[in-house]
Amino acid sequence: MRNLLMTPGPTPVPEESRLVMAKEIIHHRTKEFSEIIKEVSDGLKYVFKTKNPVLTLTSSGTGAMEAAVVNLFSKGDKVIAVSVGNFGKRFAQLGKTFGLNIIDIEYEWGQSAKVADLMDILDKNSDVKGVLITHHETSTGVLNDIESFGKAIKDKNKDILFVVDAISGLSANEFENDKWLIDCAVSGSQKGFMAPPGLAFVSLSDMAIEACKKSDIPKFYFSFEKALKEYEDNQTPFTPAITTIMSVYESCKLIKKEGIDKTIERHKTMKEAVCEGVKALNLDFFIKNENDRGNTVTTVVVPEGVDGGKIAKIMASKYGITIAGGQGNYKGKIFRIGHLGDLDPLDVVTTFSALELVLSELGYKNFEPGDSLKAIQKYLLNK
Amino acid sequence: MRNLLMTPGPTPVPEESRLVMAKEIIHHRTKEFSEIIKEVSDGLKYVFKTKNPVLTLTSSGTGAMEAAVVNLFSKGDKVIAVSVGNFGKRFAQLGKTFGLNIIDIEYEWGQSAKVADLMDILDKNSDVKGVLITHHETSTGVLNDIESFGKAIKDKNKDILFVVDAISGLSANEFENDKWLIDCAVSGSQKGFMAPPGLAFVSLSDMAIEACKKSDIPKFYFSFEKALKEYEDNQTPFTPAITTIMSVYESCKLIKKEGIDKTIERHKTMKEAVCEGVKALNLDFFIKNENDRGNTVTTVVVPEGVDGGKIAKIMASKYGITIAGGQGNYKGKIFRIGHLGDLDPLDVVTTFSALELVLSELGYKNFEPGDSLKAIQKYLLNK
Repeated sequence: MRNLLMTPGPTPVPEESRLVMAKEIIHHRTKEFSEIIKEVSDGLKYVFKTKNPVLTLTSSGTGAMEAAVVNLFSKGDKVIAVSVGNFGKRFAQLGKTFGLNIIDIEYEWGQSAKVADLMDILDKNSDVKGVLITHHETSTGVLNDIESFGKAIKDKNKDILFVVDAISGLSANEFENDKWLIDCAVSGSQKGFMAPPGLAFVSLSDMAIEACKKSDIPKFYFSFEKALKEYEDNQTPFTPAITTIMSVYESCKLIKKEGIDKTIERHKTMKEAVCEGVKALNLDFFIKNENDRGNTVTTVVVPEGVDGGKIAKIMASKYGITIAGGQGNYKGKIFRIGHLGDLDPLDVVTTFSALELVLSELGYKNFEPGDSLKAIQKYLLNK
Repeated sequence: MRNLLMTPGPTPVPEESRLVMAKEIIHHRTKEFSEIIKEVSDGLKYVFKTKNPVLTLTSSGTGAMEAAVVNLFSKGDKVIAVSVGNFGKRFAQLGKTFGLNIIDIEYEWGQSAKVADLMDILDKNSDVKGVLITHHETSTGVLNDIESFGKAIKDKNKDILFVVDAISGLSANEFENDKWLIDCAVSGSQKGFMAPPGLAFVSLSDMAIEACKKSDIPKFYFSFEKALKEYEDNQTPFTPAITTIMSVYESCKLIKKEGIDKTIERHKTMKEAVCEGVKALNLDFFIKNENDRGNTVTTVVVPEGVDGGKIAKIMASKYGITIAGGQGNYKGKIFRIGHLGDLDPLDVVTTFSALELVLSELGYKNFEPGDSLKAIQKYLLNK
């Protein structure tokens, strides 16, 4: 049976990026491996669209979020955490855990963040040191308008550090690290980078690098200063996940070959195809405002009368297609169809073929067989 | 050309453990993957020789050392750090970084730690909360007598947490987590576990688990409490390095198949074969006391007149054999021949064939061609 990962991570790893991991391992303290790290760093810069260094850490994305908090700030620093879902909340929680004075701006799940709300708080607090925000929120599929946030923050006070969780947004959605005035963006290997989990990436502006020098929060494994020192020599302070780096190396080559803007365009097409399918099945989107929906994952409300917990289970067990359920309070109430990484619109067709069968099996009859496939096909043909 | 990794990590990854990484990735929040995690946890327990839980973290070994420090202790806790080399120093440094009141016991590189020295300090300090020590010190090849330390510490005060860095020692040297009264041992995937780097493992005794509840040092990504909660369901709190876990899964099967005691015996044979080669070439061991030498790596003094920096370089460039140089103050003064992981005595023969050629090229003439090979062969035949 197929193993189709329609989730917002981990995403399918292309053959090139898998086969390279089957090769004999090489030692990391070698010229050969430094050249690989250099290529990977360049590939990361290309995807982040930045001239800044992009560090590679051996951890999950959460490790890199923690690293941003403990390296860029000091205890008691007033930092605004803008949260539109589970991972935004995690960023805020990380800040609180390590002693930052976090001001929360929380939105209902399914809504995007509003610049005006942030500005209100900035107007009342002249001593804000940084803003933490999510680019694409994996738990809901909401895409925040990072460009507008960057502009507004820096217009207000260019010394505020603008820190963005771009873990599941990168390579699927428009992202401009430098143009959007981002000081620190974090991402992970198992999302748009089409590699296995185990690596996290962090871009650092000059201002962010300066901030590291002033931070008083203890750090060792996640120290950006240690990492930056080794970065100059295309090395890492501690033994890195060599094999996963090889995989990212291959994936970066694939992204460069397709061209990052085309990669993003492909994701947009998949997103739109999924949306056509959802509409044709008379299902409701979790995110009401169309403009707030990212290209990474589409969240659908479980229709009344259907056992929401079973949709993903049967999709996987009967058809080999992995989709994601809801997190937190939305467990069983929503399901999430990922369209991230090494996938194309035909994978969307396969997914909706299965989805029609599963929904029907679970008692949902509000469509004719093939309705979603027809709608998707029509969209693809007329595109 | 061959790619023979005679280093104390990363070590060669067996074919089974490499090929599994070329397979399509599976999602981690599945029953299928939970079963893999369960098998891996069981395999880790088998190698650690423990009934305690062994957590899997996505980080290098240093990440797990940091995790031990921030989870088991509180700021100001008096903790003794016993250091016999670079990684012992790192453990002490980690303790200081996170606010522990570290009492250093440092030994000259090449010497092992003495129980009596620790007891002196324990006699004078009734408020010691823990002891950090290295099982096998990667930078020198020294093996500490962990069994005696455990017995002495617990005889003195059973409430002292006994924390052991077993990163490069496990599976090559005798190790008994429970019998040796260890509360927390850390290891890594890229050493005796014959998998790529990127995962770290942590065993926790009941007392260590209780200590986590009292610790006041901030932690999030490395939180043992978060990890223990998920451990019960064979899951991890954050997306783990799925592919590397698959590789460890295969390697654990291989270790079980060989039998851990036979695995250790094989490493002892390789160590002794290397020692025969070193003696036959009239080279000096860095560790003078034979009993202090572990089965993981053998450290050799660069003979006078030879450019020490070149030995490893030529071994790699001309013969495809990676050995390690000296660290810290011993750069260029020593070289380290690893014999760890998926290797056997014939790899030692290959290595000494190259070493004779390289030493000769670098002007060292204090042996006849084949001397080391003959000595190794004699040892192997008479064993």
